[in-house]
Amino acid sequence: MPAHVKPVAGPHVDARRPPTRGQVRPQAVAAPPLRTRDVGRSTNVRWHQATVQRADKERMLCQRGCVLWFTGLSASGKSTVAATLESILHQNGHYTMLLDGDNVRHGLNSNLGFSAEDRAENIRRVGEVAKLAAESGILTITSFISPYRADRDAVRARMAPGDFLEIYLRVPLALCEQRDPKGLYKKARAGKISNFTGINDPYEEPTGAEIVLDPYDEEHRMYSPEELALRIFDHLTIQQYLLPVPSTASF
Amino acid sequence: MPAHVKPVAGPHVDARRPPTRGQVRPQAVAAPPLRTRDVGRSTNVRWHQATVQRADKERMLCQRGCVLWFTGLSASGKSTVAATLESILHQNGHYTMLLDGDNVRHGLNSNLGFSAEDRAENIRRVGEVAKLAAESGILTITSFISPYRADRDAVRARMAPGDFLEIYLRVPLALCEQRDPKGLYKKARAGKISNFTGINDPYEEPTGAEIVLDPYDEEHRMYSPEELALRIFDHLTIQQYLLPVPSTASF
Repeated sequence: MPAHVKPVAGPHVDARRPPTRGQVRPQAVAAPPLRTRDVGRSTNVRWHQATVQRADKERMLCQRGCVLWFTGLSASGKSTVAATLESILHQNGHYTMLLDGDNVRHGLNSNLGFSAEDRAENIRRVGEVAKLAAESGILTITSFISPYRADRDAVRARMAPGDFLEIYLRVPLALCEQRDPKGLYKKARAGKISNFTGINDPYEEPTGAEIVLDPYDEEHRMYSPEELALRIFDHLTIQQYLLPVPSTASF
Repeated sequence: MPAHVKPVAGPHVDARRPPTRGQVRPQAVAAPPLRTRDVGRSTNVRWHQATVQRADKERMLCQRGCVLWFTGLSASGKSTVAATLESILHQNGHYTMLLDGDNVRHGLNSNLGFSAEDRAENIRRVGEVAKLAAESGILTITSFISPYRADRDAVRARMAPGDFLEIYLRVPLALCEQRDPKGLYKKARAGKISNFTGINDPYEEPTGAEIVLDPYDEEHRMYSPEELALRIFDHLTIQQYLLPVPSTASF
């Protein structure tokens, strides 16, 4: 920082700290181009061209950002496979974000319930956050039942081709109901939960999912979460979402 | 992938692709601990302990995640300084995400207007997204007028100490109105815009901002965006949000 710049007194700013290290290489930043337009209910909104572009971030992260959108019934294994995939990606030096239906409902969507309307808004918001993350170069994993085709397709339609990968865990209702780790199917069958997907609310299967995962092989042996996650990892590698990472030693 | 695993036919999955490379080092992933509780309007929600922890991601990114929350009047320079800061951070090998009031209103918050209630929900949602990003290790820069102290403090209260840094661009209304790049102050003065912060809607100054930036030095020379951004960069370095990056050669 030039000597003539006077640090401003803020609560936690030390006005007597040493000058900036030579490490910093500031670049002249031109005023971003602006355009004003009306969007939805917002008026007088400008769109700022980001100075750091998506491609810059993707180069840094050695990957192509995308949304890995898990869908399937409750207890189909979405969250387990998603967490396993995240772990495998991390171990290979890739940067991920995991948006989980349950976790997001503690924060961003804590003011939404489970009506069809609220489910739609739930998915819409998650889709927009995932879009922001993917467009920042992140391998963004989402794990939501997301039972309505129109809601999933609306998220897909907001994104560039190749940015949205739908991953369908095609697990039969009978198997999900047999697993029932939270006892929710039992409650739904007993009429204690309404709007429960698969019981008294529909699940609309994907028709154009990029990846479809069945729970059993041809000999009716059940795949492990790792096997299913590796299937996705392979897909990402082949489709060149994952670029070589200089060193994975420290992960 | 073990030879006995049969790839599932999906639209874009090649069932005949070669087995997984030795690069992959899958780790056995135990089922995450679960707890069920009621949250807001959501019921039967489980909280998944992420397999990849925040600390793992921060180690990978060589930084400590946080929210850098810019606040100030329209035309105070928030977005320009924020973009400049992002550029400087990127050039030094750090990973950032920029959430901009204008940009977010095209997506996540496209169904919100500018009433006090909608402004509060706007800030709440942005705060939750920023929290998710910061807790994933990202230097998360937000640029919103965010005029109400209660809204900003609510975001701060949701986060761990040190995760939320409030950056106040303390630019006098007269200077903002003089700049008026969008002509909005003129419109507001003419009564063509209601609820315009500083004119017919209040701006509540921060009382505990981590960083306060004034536009002028003591000789009344105006700071450049770079100088202001470097002030913040220094703070992040001193407070150890930025850790040494092995090599910045490729950024």
